[in-house]
Amino acid sequence: MTKNITTQTLSRLPLYFNYLTSLPEDKKNGNISATAIAEALGLNDVQVRKDLASVSRGGRPKVGYSASELMGDIGKFLGFENHDGVVVAGMGNLGRAMLECDGFADYGFDILCGFDCDKQLVGTEINGRIIRDISEMTEFCRSNNIKIGIITVPEASAQEVCNKMAEAGIEYILNFAAVRLNAPEGVMVHNENISLTLAMLARCKFSEQ
Amino acid sequence: MTKNITTQTLSRLPLYFNYLTSLPEDKKNGNISATAIAEALGLNDVQVRKDLASVSRGGRPKVGYSASELMGDIGKFLGFENHDGVVVAGMGNLGRAMLECDGFADYGFDILCGFDCDKQLVGTEINGRIIRDISEMTEFCRSNNIKIGIITVPEASAQEVCNKMAEAGIEYILNFAAVRLNAPEGVMVHNENISLTLAMLARCKFSEQ
Repeated sequence: MTKNITTQTLSRLPLYFNYLTSLPEDKKNGNISATAIAEALGLNDVQVRKDLASVSRGGRPKVGYSASELMGDIGKFLGFENHDGVVVAGMGNLGRAMLECDGFADYGFDILCGFDCDKQLVGTEINGRIIRDISEMTEFCRSNNIKIGIITVPEASAQEVCNKMAEAGIEYILNFAAVRLNAPEGVMVHNENISLTLAMLARCKFSEQ
Repeated sequence: MTKNITTQTLSRLPLYFNYLTSLPEDKKNGNISATAIAEALGLNDVQVRKDLASVSRGGRPKVGYSASELMGDIGKFLGFENHDGVVVAGMGNLGRAMLECDGFADYGFDILCGFDCDKQLVGTEINGRIIRDISEMTEFCRSNNIKIGIITVPEASAQEVCNKMAEAGIEYILNFAAVRLNAPEGVMVHNENISLTLAMLARCKFSEQ
C-alpha cells in the first residue's frame, strides 16, 4: 500500500491506535470524536482530525468515528493485518540492536531473522531471532516472501548485499552502511546516515518531525 | 553556527571536501570550477554550483573557486575547525554501534566517550573511547564543553538522561529511545525513530534524500 502521508501524521498513528486499544469494551463499541482523542493524548484537535481523515473515511460530523472501525483503518494502514517480515544483514552492534528492538511491531513490521557470514554467529539467537548464514538469504526471503531488508554490514560489502537482497525479491532497503548504494531496478533504497542527522540537528535549522 | 541548508546539500559537503583534499598540491593551490567538481564526482553541475554557493562566497564567474579557500569554507561549515565533542548515554548495542562508527568525523563530530550505569562496563573501552559512569556525565560535559549528546538508553530512563544532559550544558540531543522527550528549555531534541523511517519507506511515498 502506497499513500501520500506526512511523516508527522505517520508518527502519530501508533499513538491513536494504542489509545483506541486501551479503551474499555463499551467505548470500543461506540463512537469517538477526534476532539476526544486529541484531549486524551494532549494533541491539537485540528491536527488529529486531519490525521484520522487521511487514513479513514469513517468520520461523520457531530458523530465522530466508530472506534472499532477507526482502529481497523489505522491498523490496516500500519500493516497490522498482514505483518510485513523484515530481515537484517550484518550482525555487528547496529544489526544486533535492530534485532533487539521491539518497536518495529508498532508499525506492523516483524524482524524475522538476521544474516551474517561469521560462522560463529550463525545458529545463535538474539531476542528470539535466529542468525542465519548470509548464503541462505535468497532462499529464506523468497520462501517467506520478504520485501523489506535492513543493511548494517560494513561499507565494503554493502553493495554486494544490496544486490543479493534484490535477487532475493526484496523491494525496500534501509541502508545504514556509509556508502551510497546503486539500487537495482524495482528496489527502493533509503540511506540512513546518523552523522548527517546529527549535523542537521547541531549545525542547521532542523525542523523537528 | 546555524544556517539554512537542505539535507541534500549537507549530505554532499563531505564528498566535496574529500575530493578537494585528494587533489595534488599544485591543484590545491589553484582554482577549480564547480563544473570540474561535478564531473569528477558524477554529479549535476547546477546542483554542485548551488551547494557550493550556500557555504562559500568565494566563487567567481569563469574563474571558479580557489580550491584551498573552498576547502576551508566547507571545513568551517562542517565544523572541522572546532571539532564538536559528542557523548553517548547507554551502552547497549546501539550505543556501542555509535562509539564504533567513525563516520561522524566526516561531519566534524568527535564521539568522546560513552556513559552507562553498569559497573561492569565502566572503565572498558570501545574503539578507543572510554565508558564512564553515568554519574560523571555532568562534570565531564561541563569541563569538556560538550554541547551534543546521543541517547540510546532504554525508554524508561530516557527522560531522566535527557534532564541530566540539559543540566550538564548539552544543547542538542539525538534521541533513539522510543519515547518522546520533554526537552528542557534551550535544548533541541531530535527523536530518531528507525521503525518510522522503515514505515515511510515501505508504506508511503518516500522522497529519497
